[in-house]
Amino acid sequence: MIKNAAARIKGQIHRTPVMTCSTLNSISKKDLYFKCENLQKTGSFKVRGALNTLKTILEEGKKPELIVTHSSGNHGQAVAWASNSLNLGCTVVVPEGTPRVKCQAIQGYNAELVFCTPTPTGRKETAERISKERNGVLVHPYDNYNVIAGQATIGLELLEEVPDLDYIIVPISGGGMTSGIALAAHYINPQCQVIAVEPEGKNLQTCLDAKERLWKNPPEFLNTIAEGIKTQQLGQLTFPILCDLIKQVVTVTDKEMADGCKVIAERMKLVVEAASGAAIAAAFSQECDFMNGKKVGIILCGGNLDMDALPWQIV
Amino acid sequence: MIKNAAARIKGQIHRTPVMTCSTLNSISKKDLYFKCENLQKTGSFKVRGALNTLKTILEEGKKPELIVTHSSGNHGQAVAWASNSLNLGCTVVVPEGTPRVKCQAIQGYNAELVFCTPTPTGRKETAERISKERNGVLVHPYDNYNVIAGQATIGLELLEEVPDLDYIIVPISGGGMTSGIALAAHYINPQCQVIAVEPEGKNLQTCLDAKERLWKNPPEFLNTIAEGIKTQQLGQLTFPILCDLIKQVVTVTDKEMADGCKVIAERMKLVVEAASGAAIAAAFSQECDFMNGKKVGIILCGGNLDMDALPWQIV
Repeated sequence: MIKNAAARIKGQIHRTPVMTCSTLNSISKKDLYFKCENLQKTGSFKVRGALNTLKTILEEGKKPELIVTHSSGNHGQAVAWASNSLNLGCTVVVPEGTPRVKCQAIQGYNAELVFCTPTPTGRKETAERISKERNGVLVHPYDNYNVIAGQATIGLELLEEVPDLDYIIVPISGGGMTSGIALAAHYINPQCQVIAVEPEGKNLQTCLDAKERLWKNPPEFLNTIAEGIKTQQLGQLTFPILCDLIKQVVTVTDKEMADGCKVIAERMKLVVEAASGAAIAAAFSQECDFMNGKKVGIILCGGNLDMDALPWQIV
Repeated sequence: MIKNAAARIKGQIHRTPVMTCSTLNSISKKDLYFKCENLQKTGSFKVRGALNTLKTILEEGKKPELIVTHSSGNHGQAVAWASNSLNLGCTVVVPEGTPRVKCQAIQGYNAELVFCTPTPTGRKETAERISKERNGVLVHPYDNYNVIAGQATIGLELLEEVPDLDYIIVPISGGGMTSGIALAAHYINPQCQVIAVEPEGKNLQTCLDAKERLWKNPPEFLNTIAEGIKTQQLGQLTFPILCDLIKQVVTVTDKEMADGCKVIAERMKLVVEAASGAAIAAAFSQECDFMNGKKVGIILCGGNLDMDALPWQIV
């Protein structure tokens, strides 16, 4: 399924570079391999899952009148871009307060923008209503096996270039990317462990250890600068996969993520968003000392930032 | 000489990627090919010339006790890095007021830092004094044929990847990089014209047209945010080359450079310094409308910025 996804999206998305940085190796005492999804089309990995899902729908002979999604931004841009490149109409539901640059990008891909109250329930209900009223197909940001398979191609590509990675550090939100990469590692190199990195307040380790969804309902967004990973709860499809495959979760503060973004900008000359800063922050944290001397993949998941409010300037 | 330089430095520096961006193509109405020297070792193209020069000195059998240079920053980092990797001692003379991040980087490559008054004469005299007192070899930032040949490898690599470029836009300071790239284009694809982009106050077009150094002496720094291209006068070696090979100079304001840096960060997720912003600013300017529909190389010459004082935040 992952290899099919890779073949399906090949040529339409970038095979993003894997970069290294000797200074960051010295600081972290690890051999770091940065998978630069910030350089991906639309500025984040999300196009992989979106394109794989839409192309699968078309391959199955369906002809949807409208593609609908709800997203804090990156998935919205990705679905808008994928719809546009497949000549499908698209409506994106985004929470009020989404950064200007993300809204402009979605509209730049010819999609319609609909604002909703900034809660998980608000965006879900608005998207479902529009989809029903206008005979649309709803593309969920993470709870969809085609989305998961699309995101898994990140892991596939990274392990093709660095087959003997010991660990991969992945920022986690709803769990689409993390479950995809964990599945890719499981099939390609089961020695390679995937470590999830989360903002404060998610409490993922407790839930994974108990193999139970201990989160309070209705779902809430976390209070974090990392807009890309503010969803607290994993999906219904992603949670069981991650209970199986993820042993360890690292929690980082907003300040640590912001410092991570700054050091990546200073040393690697790359613009990465706070969720990506979380991954390098984890690599720098004492909790990851057990990886010292090892080969560690770092997923720089996206680079969509408001350039007038950079993470290290607002924390 | 250019191919010898390429062979000499190969493997020790990055062959930097050539990137494209469909959004910036739309805005500029040109097919832009970005040579990403901001991703080069030390964060700028300067390592090419520095390493070529030092390796040539060693090949000639000389064993200098100390390598000395004067630089507003990027050349200093480059000479420090090259000296360090060849196990040579190094002293870098920098003007007072050089950004903190550049000073730290120079010291990170084990070089000694000496501050001088921030004038072209001040740094030249200080470097010459130290070099004389301590039996050192002075590596000039641009007025040195081995430096020029090293920088020329940028043009060589770019034209290897995009052989049918119509134009290359190069930010100009002392003229080492511009004369190198112009020589590379002249030998490899003489149809490809090199356009120099300068900050306000340099008046290069007038000097080139007259084939005369019409600048006032003693030399001064220009009043610009683009620290990498603030030298007003071309070198004694670079000026004649550029009189022969450069037909057109484009002048951009600090505001245009800053906007250029911002759009590169927003759209390409790359950190570039103001001198690189100048190149994209030129591509966007009406003066370059004659290039519309053509293939244009853009030299992103460096990415060394103070992350707390970004160009679009200080202009």
